[in-house]
Amino acid sequence: MIHEHLKDRILYDGTQIRPNWALNELNIKGPSIITWIGPMNIKDIIDYEDKNLEIKAEKMAHFIVEHFDEQPANLRLCYHRQRILVMILQEELWEHDIPTKREGDDLYIGTGKLTVSVATAAVSSMKIHLGMNITSKGTPEDVETVGILDYKSLGEDDIIKIVSNVAKKYIQEIRLIEEDITKTRTG
Amino acid sequence: MIHEHLKDRILYDGTQIRPNWALNELNIKGPSIITWIGPMNIKDIIDYEDKNLEIKAEKMAHFIVEHFDEQPANLRLCYHRQRILVMILQEELWEHDIPTKREGDDLYIGTGKLTVSVATAAVSSMKIHLGMNITSKGTPEDVETVGILDYKSLGEDDIIKIVSNVAKKYIQEIRLIEEDITKTRTG
Amino acid sequence: MIHEHLKDRILYDGTQIRPNWALNELNIKGPSIITWIGPMNIKDIIDYEDKNLEIKAEKMAHFIVEHFDEQPANLRLCYHRQRILVMILQEELWEHDIPTKREGDDLYIGTGKLTVSVATAAVSSMKIHLGMNITSKGTPEDVETVGILDYKSLGEDDIIKIVSNVAKKYIQEIRLIEEDITKTRTG
Amino acid sequence: MIHEHLKDRILYDGTQIRPNWALNELNIKGPSIITWIGPMNIKDIIDYEDKNLEIKAEKMAHFIVEHFDEQPANLRLCYHRQRILVMILQEELWEHDIPTKREGDDLYIGTGKLTVSVATAAVSSMKIHLGMNITSKGTPEDVETVGILDYKSLGEDDIIKIVSNVAKKYIQEIRLIEEDITKTRTG
Amino acid sequence: MIHEHLKDRILYDGTQIRPNWALNELNIKGPSIITWIGPMNIKDIIDYEDKNLEIKAEKMAHFIVEHFDEQPANLRLCYHRQRILVMILQEELWEHDIPTKREGDDLYIGTGKLTVSVATAAVSSMKIHLGMNITSKGTPEDVETVGILDYKSLGEDDIIKIVSNVAKKYIQEIRLIEEDITKTRTG
Amino acid sequence: MIHEHLKDRILYDGTQIRPNWALNELNIKGPSIITWIGPMNIKDIIDYEDKNLEIKAEKMAHFIVEHFDEQPANLRLCYHRQRILVMILQEELWEHDIPTKREGDDLYIGTGKLTVSVATAAVSSMKIHLGMNITSKGTPEDVETVGILDYKSLGEDDIIKIVSNVAKKYIQEIRLIEEDITKTRTG
Repeated sequence: MIHEHLKDRILYDGTQIRPNWALNELNIKGPSIITWIGPMNIKDIIDYEDKNLEIKAEKMAHFIVEHFDEQPANLRLCYHRQRILVMILQEELWEHDIPTKREGDDLYIGTGKLTVSVATAAVSSMKIHLGMNITSKGTPEDVETVGILDYKSLGEDDIIKIVSNVAKKYIQEIRLIEEDITKTRTG
Repeated sequence: MIHEHLKDRILYDGTQIRPNWALNELNIKGPSIITWIGPMNIKDIIDYEDKNLEIKAEKMAHFIVEHFDEQPANLRLCYHRQRILVMILQEELWEHDIPTKREGDDLYIGTGKLTVSVATAAVSSMKIHLGMNITSKGTPEDVETVGILDYKSLGEDDIIKIVSNVAKKYIQEIRLIEEDITKTRTG
Repeated sequence: MIHEHLKDRILYDGTQIRPNWALNELNIKGPSIITWIGPMNIKDIIDYEDKNLEIKAEKMAHFIVEHFDEQPANLRLCYHRQRILVMILQEELWEHDIPTKREGDDLYIGTGKLTVSVATAAVSSMKIHLGMNITSKGTPEDVETVGILDYKSLGEDDIIKIVSNVAKKYIQEIRLIEEDITKTRTG
Repeated sequence: MIHEHLKDRILYDGTQIRPNWALNELNIKGPSIITWIGPMNIKDIIDYEDKNLEIKAEKMAHFIVEHFDEQPANLRLCYHRQRILVMILQEELWEHDIPTKREGDDLYIGTGKLTVSVATAAVSSMKIHLGMNITSKGTPEDVETVGILDYKSLGEDDIIKIVSNVAKKYIQEIRLIEEDITKTRTG
Repeated sequence: MIHEHLKDRILYDGTQIRPNWALNELNIKGPSIITWIGPMNIKDIIDYEDKNLEIKAEKMAHFIVEHFDEQPANLRLCYHRQRILVMILQEELWEHDIPTKREGDDLYIGTGKLTVSVATAAVSSMKIHLGMNITSKGTPEDVETVGILDYKSLGEDDIIKIVSNVAKKYIQEIRLIEEDITKTRTG
Repeated sequence: MIHEHLKDRILYDGTQIRPNWALNELNIKGPSIITWIGPMNIKDIIDYEDKNLEIKAEKMAHFIVEHFDEQPANLRLCYHRQRILVMILQEELWEHDIPTKREGDDLYIGTGKLTVSVATAAVSSMKIHLGMNITSKGTPEDVETVGILDYKSLGEDDIIKIVSNVAKKYIQEIRLIEEDITKTRTG
């Protein structure tokens, strides 16, 4: 599993959560975690409860994860991995003295919503999107949101560092779980 | 899924991680998280790398989780759930101003190891054990360990409160994941 | 898993068997069995052998079942559940002195076909449709059909009672199977 | 999948539900349903709730089913098949004017328990036992039981006919389900 | 599982790899291996790396395999079966003194590419296409290809014999694997 | 997945096919293919049809494969991998001008049996044993066997070369299959 941070400020519009996006658009083959900083405006919402909502923001840090290890793809496993990704982000923020509260797959600073996230699966691919507001600009008016810069002054390099650490720790976590599987007595 | 906290100071000797222990010994049917405070001395170690080690402690808070939802039982899913359980404990400790560092399924206070944990699976049952040192007494001499009381003064009620909160949040997390599955577009 | 009986006389046109229909159209989240009385005229047939047939009726009792427990969705398990649903309907009819013969997923009164049924699966959702003719009016001319009222005089309340009993027994059956899983020695 | 009815009056003692019993003891390879008439006295009970009970009878019709199609073996699917087997027996008894009531995997004539049943799974094999009392002799005193001969006078040939019909219909049901899978649109 | 060799010189355009093609177009129900001789010109390429390539040939022997046994369909298993199919073709060619080299799912005679192949899966169906060049005519100019007739003079009957042998051996291989499953101790 | 060739002339007695043997006896963690040259005398036969047979030989090349990728372990997938391993050995022998015939998981030189093989699975581990006779000495008298040295004069280095090539090609094959999964359109 590889991590690649994109320099381009791509708009997250929901197409990036489709299977094999990394291969088709970025020529990155195999399991991956792709990160970048950019706006969000989702046209095609896959959470049925949110399907008439506006989901948008001016500047976010985005994570797109794709796994192919469990065949066929398992949405239950994928949502467990989503939670682990969100909790690794929470750990990383704590280490930068940015305490957050978690409810399911959402992180909050105080009462402000910091993140959006969803997981999905197709026949052979499991995907996760996690987006963290860098500022609260451009977010929907009917939701109280917060950006990481609203809490603490950070340079873009600091943010990229946080994003990269999260990606690396996530990759290592999945690797360690696979290692644990190989050394456990079962049955 | 139910939580039950046992008053008895049961010795965790590794038999509690066998399938259907809660049903056979406690008459608790179905998925459950059983907690208690008691010593540990494992005879029958299921982590092959640790199989010649002493794993013991005088006083720990124990969690035993059993799931039957994924059939057949899936050790990969079970290790993901173990990570989520450990991270929920970490969150709860943070809220009590007890900051820990996590490496895989281990929590540390400073350089002292606070927890032990393992997951396993049989044909139809997935199980997790998580034990948190209350004191470092009685732990193996060749490992630097720490008990939660070494860091902060807490009454037994406080510890039971922490344990119960972790159990409740874990049950809620699994429930929320199942709910997320039912409202996600796939394919 | 919940049961809801709809008052509206919805046309069953095949769209109701799509994943998450209950959530999207009725705002019912999670596993469910939705029942109602209404006509049928299927545009979009998912049984490839029947794809050029007319499948219609003027008045039927409809059951739509959706499960999310087995991830990924398993069409084999779903067809087993369909058989169980059909056989529970058969049991309920027997108790109302309406004896039927079963062939696979079809019930017959004498030589008249009483029911239509199909199961399907998407990546994360398993669905069943079962429809029972209340009258034989409006059914295709090339098939010998029978309505439950052709055999026995029943009020609409009686029919709703039968439908509700079947739904409740089905929910209980699935619950009992899950309970059986948790108390069985395996391996 | 084949059916074989044994002439020998084998004691059902619980060993027959172990994986590959038909191959090891009878040299019958592959998926099978083995039937015979004989006593029951279970030493090794796999239902944890019944583990201290006496489970015995002097004369029963026994069915032992083994499947290998779903890999790895799935206890959930196996319990669905058990229900289908029990319901096929119920259908067959109805056709012989022996009406029964079903509760989960148990059939009753009036308030008398007619059958015992359990399903289990190992890594690669799914197994079902279903036993129907021919007489109530030799059954535990603390349970109200009934034998099929207590309700209706039948010769041994009639009973073997019933048993064989159930076995054949079960095999056909599983075959039809597999056929249904191959002609269903999914996704 | 059945084999059917078609007399018609159908164009392989990629639609034949869709689920249930054999049922919908040929009225062949259940698991099957369909073979024929005909041209190829794929419009709808399912290997993302090849998606802008021309994949075509004037005369090929085609194999289309469909399995429904593993539910839900498993792309990993399907690619294992594809390799087995390709290796059975390699064995058959060796027996006709046509030595080939294999790289993954491709066979070569010397440096000329003899075959194209892909596997895919939908929710309930696993499919494989394998095409072997009979001549190298009409193949893309940027790839060095070879036809079986470029290496050895064979009549159409000989080719149909090779194709039929491969189909029969593949069916037998899958059957033997299922048999091996039923006689293996596990756990 | 790693390959390790052992210098020691270990007796293959059937214990090596147990889960986690490589970890417990050789301290090799994770998926692996372990090879060595040594005698065979199996005490504990896991093919039920062979359970009363003598399975022994004086000098064989042994392969022990262990996979943990599919969770839970799948015996069907494992037997497909066994076939692929046997066919890769066949390919390698062809390249050394040692033509063999294959029947299921057995290779023959003429009418002499060259290999023995079995696959099995536990809850979390899939294992394969493949043994190739180097000489026919010490093999059971009631089976016609052949050793590779009976057909062609080879030094021990040549044999180790063959064994290592097979191991490397097998590892690459599994890797390529995983790569193919990540670039295939499904659904």
